[in-house]
Amino acid sequence: MDYNILQDLALEEGGKIVYLILDGLGGLRMEGWEGTELQVARTPNLDRLASQSVCGLLDPIWPGITPGSGPAHFAIFGYDPLQFEVGRGVLAALGIGFQLTERDVAARINFCTLDQEGKVADRRAGRIPTEENRRLCAKLRGSLNLGTEFFIEPVKEHRAVLVLRGEGLGGDLADTDPQKEGFAPLEPKFLSPESKRTAELVKDFLHQAKEILADEPKANMLILRGFAKYNPFPTMEERYKLHSLAIANYPMYRGLARLVGMDVWPEVGDLKDEFKLLAQNFPQYDFFYLHVKKTDSFGEDGNFAAKVKVIEEVDSLLPQVLELKPEVIVVTADHSTPSKLKSHSWHPIPVLLFSPNCRVDEVERFDEISCIKGGLGRLPAVALITLALAHARRLQKYGA
Amino acid sequence: MDYNILQDLALEEGGKIVYLILDGLGGLRMEGWEGTELQVARTPNLDRLASQSVCGLLDPIWPGITPGSGPAHFAIFGYDPLQFEVGRGVLAALGIGFQLTERDVAARINFCTLDQEGKVADRRAGRIPTEENRRLCAKLRGSLNLGTEFFIEPVKEHRAVLVLRGEGLGGDLADTDPQKEGFAPLEPKFLSPESKRTAELVKDFLHQAKEILADEPKANMLILRGFAKYNPFPTMEERYKLHSLAIANYPMYRGLARLVGMDVWPEVGDLKDEFKLLAQNFPQYDFFYLHVKKTDSFGEDGNFAAKVKVIEEVDSLLPQVLELKPEVIVVTADHSTPSKLKSHSWHPIPVLLFSPNCRVDEVERFDEISCIKGGLGRLPAVALITLALAHARRLQKYGA
Repeated sequence: MDYNILQDLALEEGGKIVYLILDGLGGLRMEGWEGTELQVARTPNLDRLASQSVCGLLDPIWPGITPGSGPAHFAIFGYDPLQFEVGRGVLAALGIGFQLTERDVAARINFCTLDQEGKVADRRAGRIPTEENRRLCAKLRGSLNLGTEFFIEPVKEHRAVLVLRGEGLGGDLADTDPQKEGFAPLEPKFLSPESKRTAELVKDFLHQAKEILADEPKANMLILRGFAKYNPFPTMEERYKLHSLAIANYPMYRGLARLVGMDVWPEVGDLKDEFKLLAQNFPQYDFFYLHVKKTDSFGEDGNFAAKVKVIEEVDSLLPQVLELKPEVIVVTADHSTPSKLKSHSWHPIPVLLFSPNCRVDEVERFDEISCIKGGLGRLPAVALITLALAHARRLQKYGA
Repeated sequence: MDYNILQDLALEEGGKIVYLILDGLGGLRMEGWEGTELQVARTPNLDRLASQSVCGLLDPIWPGITPGSGPAHFAIFGYDPLQFEVGRGVLAALGIGFQLTERDVAARINFCTLDQEGKVADRRAGRIPTEENRRLCAKLRGSLNLGTEFFIEPVKEHRAVLVLRGEGLGGDLADTDPQKEGFAPLEPKFLSPESKRTAELVKDFLHQAKEILADEPKANMLILRGFAKYNPFPTMEERYKLHSLAIANYPMYRGLARLVGMDVWPEVGDLKDEFKLLAQNFPQYDFFYLHVKKTDSFGEDGNFAAKVKVIEEVDSLLPQVLELKPEVIVVTADHSTPSKLKSHSWHPIPVLLFSPNCRVDEVERFDEISCIKGGLGRLPAVALITLALAHARRLQKYGA
């Protein structure tokens, strides 16, 4: 499906849409438990809503493909994740809440240790503490003198982010990371003519950084990976005529929302605050993306019981969404993160779509096993946005 | 989905995958029987496995499209059958177990009868017996003198195969078959410049063949169809990093497996031997394609009872696969061949995927009707390979 078609079909007016996204919600049965996390959780409100909704399973990318957070979110926002890509440097900058502009090229920094011959002895500089990382970033910032604006921001341990800002900078550069220890860092190399100037800036940057870090015991150099220019996607306003607000308490998800042109609520406390913010801002927007992070975090930890708890907490807050009476409520995930696997996985995600206009199916419990018997069947996640728009009466007929 | 992406995602290491393919397995209820062949068959082992698996239905090409054996197999191996094509000449050569090389152009031969004016009086030369066919092929081989290496191999009745072998031969030639009787065979015509030399060789071949066959009472000429160059597909090793073995007792399926780069067990006896070979070769490979032909043959014959018997025999051998403990077992078909229709059909094929990492659904019987309630839903068959790779933990995450 060519989503550009939606620009012609989307209406200015229509109902409001709430996306309640439980990150990594999809799960698996795990030893010692009587079902998946969602099956084990007591979710009377979600189940009641499911029994009045149309349900199904969604594939974020393609059956069998495990997505990262970026592509998984793009899909549910209706941006084909195989077509819309962001580089790893950009994702790293989004992940720490750095507000990128269209003049920016971002790359991931690894502080590393060079031996006396200038070869990489440790690609992670002994995993220096984050505190040390902060000090090094400040030191670099204070001493560097580049021909363009730049930012150096710590992430965690040995990882940081470099952002170069300037007109006409390309992001098509090879990594300087030699990948293996025992080799010298690679020279910056541009892969397209538009990135020639960036390569020169990076060369200068690395030259100066080496001198500035020379007296450091561990992190006496850095290597760069995942160069990428920040190209915001066409906005949800442009594509769907949706004036959209993101409520998320992790910087990465606020960054992804900004990338598709959503307004972003700057700071959020806990889950209860997120639901309060939704109510407070409800009159001002058409579309709301409310992101719950901890289902994913506990899944990654393999903490089945804690993931169950978060699901139950969301369930208890759900009536606050219902009270607002949006035309469409979607409850789903971006991807699965089964506690059993302690990682993102390829398993399809359960979805319910509630609307006065939905064709209610026979599903009476909101979980991964029940949902496949729902009226949506199994669909690519990228189809979710058109379903939401349709139920909100925001799409015209295609063709006469 | 662009399957080239898998080259970046596929890992060198991971679990083993067994594809147990019952050719033409999908069926229909037929008068006098209480269900489809698979429903009627007593399959305690398949049913038990289904109750521990994720099940669904697959469309080989597209809903409603009946596939030939080639495209149907390409799909389950993950090669989009609308993109990967082999010409009919190549398929005919594969079908008799002819080992094609990349320097080969193959075409189908029909022995035919010309009248005195040189017009085709019988496009099948009265369906001469296969014995007669063999004699004619030998006669041609013994007398022809071409400017390149060539092979003429009998198939059945009036059908044979021509293979021209040489550097730089193109396969883009029009048929010489006039399609209707009462017309002279067409002159060989090249459809692209690279095939000019092939056309000249074919012209010479036909000129000589006409003289050699002139005294034959029935098959006094031949017509050529389905010219095609043999272009092996990118291998399963290249695409998926799977070292693969095919165990199949019909030449056609060994040929299809060779086309995607599998190692092929040269000769196989009966079904029991196939399962024994699987066990013997289990340590040496990552992926196993075990092909059961007779479900299809009996389907084509309209022999419902015999097809049921074959399914039951496979069921009784299934525990031998389970004992090997592969990470992934897939049981499915290439396409449906309902006894009721006595031919391939468009009906989707039932599939079960068993793995410790699968999300077990509520399906408790392995048959066409139960499977649609399974967690896989209805998917294109080409998605099967990514699901198998994912469950074998052989795919990295897509994007960050």
